[in-house]
Amino acid sequence: MTVNRSASTLVEVPRGLAGVVVTDTEVGDVRGTEGFYHYREHSAVELARTRGFEDVWHLLVHGALPDRERAAAFAAGTAALRRLPAEVRTALPAVAAASGASGPLAGLRTALSLLGAAKGFRPVYDIGADRRRADTVAACAAVPTLLTALYRLGQGLDPVEPREDLSYAANYLYMLTGTEPDSRRARAVEQYLISTIDHGFNASTFTARVIASTGADVAACLVGAVGALSGPLHGGAPSRALDTLDAIGTPDRIDPWIRERVLAGDRVMGFGHAVYRTEDPRSRMLREIAQDFGGPRVEFAVEVERHVERILAELKPGRELHTNVEFYAGVVMELCGLPREMFTPTFAAARVVGWSANILEQATDSKIIRPVARYVGPEPIVADAVTA
Amino acid sequence: MTVNRSASTLVEVPRGLAGVVVTDTEVGDVRGTEGFYHYREHSAVELARTRGFEDVWHLLVHGALPDRERAAAFAAGTAALRRLPAEVRTALPAVAAASGASGPLAGLRTALSLLGAAKGFRPVYDIGADRRRADTVAACAAVPTLLTALYRLGQGLDPVEPREDLSYAANYLYMLTGTEPDSRRARAVEQYLISTIDHGFNASTFTARVIASTGADVAACLVGAVGALSGPLHGGAPSRALDTLDAIGTPDRIDPWIRERVLAGDRVMGFGHAVYRTEDPRSRMLREIAQDFGGPRVEFAVEVERHVERILAELKPGRELHTNVEFYAGVVMELCGLPREMFTPTFAAARVVGWSANILEQATDSKIIRPVARYVGPEPIVADAVTA
Repeated sequence: MTVNRSASTLVEVPRGLAGVVVTDTEVGDVRGTEGFYHYREHSAVELARTRGFEDVWHLLVHGALPDRERAAAFAAGTAALRRLPAEVRTALPAVAAASGASGPLAGLRTALSLLGAAKGFRPVYDIGADRRRADTVAACAAVPTLLTALYRLGQGLDPVEPREDLSYAANYLYMLTGTEPDSRRARAVEQYLISTIDHGFNASTFTARVIASTGADVAACLVGAVGALSGPLHGGAPSRALDTLDAIGTPDRIDPWIRERVLAGDRVMGFGHAVYRTEDPRSRMLREIAQDFGGPRVEFAVEVERHVERILAELKPGRELHTNVEFYAGVVMELCGLPREMFTPTFAAARVVGWSANILEQATDSKIIRPVARYVGPEPIVADAVTA
Repeated sequence: MTVNRSASTLVEVPRGLAGVVVTDTEVGDVRGTEGFYHYREHSAVELARTRGFEDVWHLLVHGALPDRERAAAFAAGTAALRRLPAEVRTALPAVAAASGASGPLAGLRTALSLLGAAKGFRPVYDIGADRRRADTVAACAAVPTLLTALYRLGQGLDPVEPREDLSYAANYLYMLTGTEPDSRRARAVEQYLISTIDHGFNASTFTARVIASTGADVAACLVGAVGALSGPLHGGAPSRALDTLDAIGTPDRIDPWIRERVLAGDRVMGFGHAVYRTEDPRSRMLREIAQDFGGPRVEFAVEVERHVERILAELKPGRELHTNVEFYAGVVMELCGLPREMFTPTFAAARVVGWSANILEQATDSKIIRPVARYVGPEPIVADAVTA
């Protein structure tokens, strides 16, 4: 009996494709040993410190930071895309009603799929680069509107119509609460969003690119990415770090609580990262933002961080375990009035721009991403093989 | 300046992960040189000839064909799951209204996402094997109901409620048309559906497994797979082969039409396959089914096949180019009264069972599928690196 393909054409690789180079990219990268990550050739943290969300969005999908004129045009163009098509608005109450049990990302998954269909998104290989980019921009611009409408409907409140005169971040907070946020909170959320747009080749980004490689439309790619993001192994759940703070409760309980967890072999949520061997650069920035707000919650968080790092260094010497992005992201979002169930959706509201840049890059390739599986089950009986 | 990881840990592989073994599988395989494919250890064509859809579905998700008692229980259990939750029914008119421009797969993508949320699907890593399987069965059982409701709503018709006393295939045709199909047509569609459940490790199957590897819920995985299936490079568009028949029109035009296409370097839709170097075993079975129906359309299709194979052998000697599954699948679906825009959705109504088997298998692994990308853009300025 012959086999499907000769053994020599099969390529053996590490489990989970770890370390396997699936594509070249110009979107960005993470340098784990340096504690540094970048979008295009710009430090992501530097962008978060000095730029607005829309400028960085432009950088991601157009490949360069905009000059003053383009920045204004891009901001106005995206603001005009915040309003939802009528079919989507009509369906949202039913989507919100259905999505309670599976969480807000399930609602976003449905709503983005619906939005893409309502906007008539077409296969990325059937349209030009400008139309592809426009589809990603239309999807991203609507994500805060979708998320906040689903959240409010779930709370029994009417959705708040988007405002075009506010920034992406300020309008997001406005639609969520119905109140225009103060500039400090709007800016803090904006800096979090910028710092979260992209971060190496994570599983949701890879999913978006696999779907894009079939030539499917932008919504198909984004919906798959949202699905991957919803997986517990993906990470990006800043509410878990707050759960740690809540579980510890008071400063005197930090030491025993952490020691117990570490000695039991449990992971302490908010600490440790797969790539960084230094402090997570996002943590450092978000800690500074939190400390600017100040207050007992922030002081407690800083104290927990200090104790945990000391205890981890003592109990797990030689391993560099620091706070990851989830820890202070949770603290900052709480300070800005975001409800905990909106933490991961807020993450998605930024990452959708990173997925978009990756989809646009993948669409310039024409090769489908299609590995193989090795059949290891019982040998079939080949009774009806076709002879050529 | 150091780089993120040492070059030696990066694994170079062929473009698009071609030939890269990403997982072991016991779901099934395709043997291209033998013209043979199988589900578990059973010939897929033999299953299509001798079994009902529900039995093969059981084989895929339970790992073995059912005995008589289990077969009856599985059929009854899945039939009871055809009815949609109220939130989903409520939302479908808006989904149908939105999905016109992006096609019926965009509607299925939205509706499956909504269904999973309404059913409270939970991350596959957070639930046991029985609950995971039950989630896939609930999703698959509802797909014909979703597809036919979306189609009818798009035509301005009311959806037809599912019947539990009909087989999966017969009920599908019944909900589509509102009339109980004759047994020959129901059986022909059933055989097509069985033959389409799985076929090696295609891009939609891979997508489903990547999302499952993050631990996301079954709906997240299926919705991503539907997205990948909607891509033009994925294949599985049997309507294109009928377009070929229509374009040729009459027997006397076969020769000039085909020669013109082949000499211009155009692909002739319905011919050629990436894996098979023999006749596609699905083609042979579907041709026989079509010939049992008989009639001028079938005779024309057979004549086109004969001419095309002769001309291709003459103009492209040495290459084995035969009809692929799309060619006679289109003919059979047309004979059974399926409208052309429902051909690919019908494909999805079968393949969703194959995706399910793959999701269940992936969920027994605990390793995320996460390759890497190589940054090749301009060198960033590392001004704000964090020192450990």
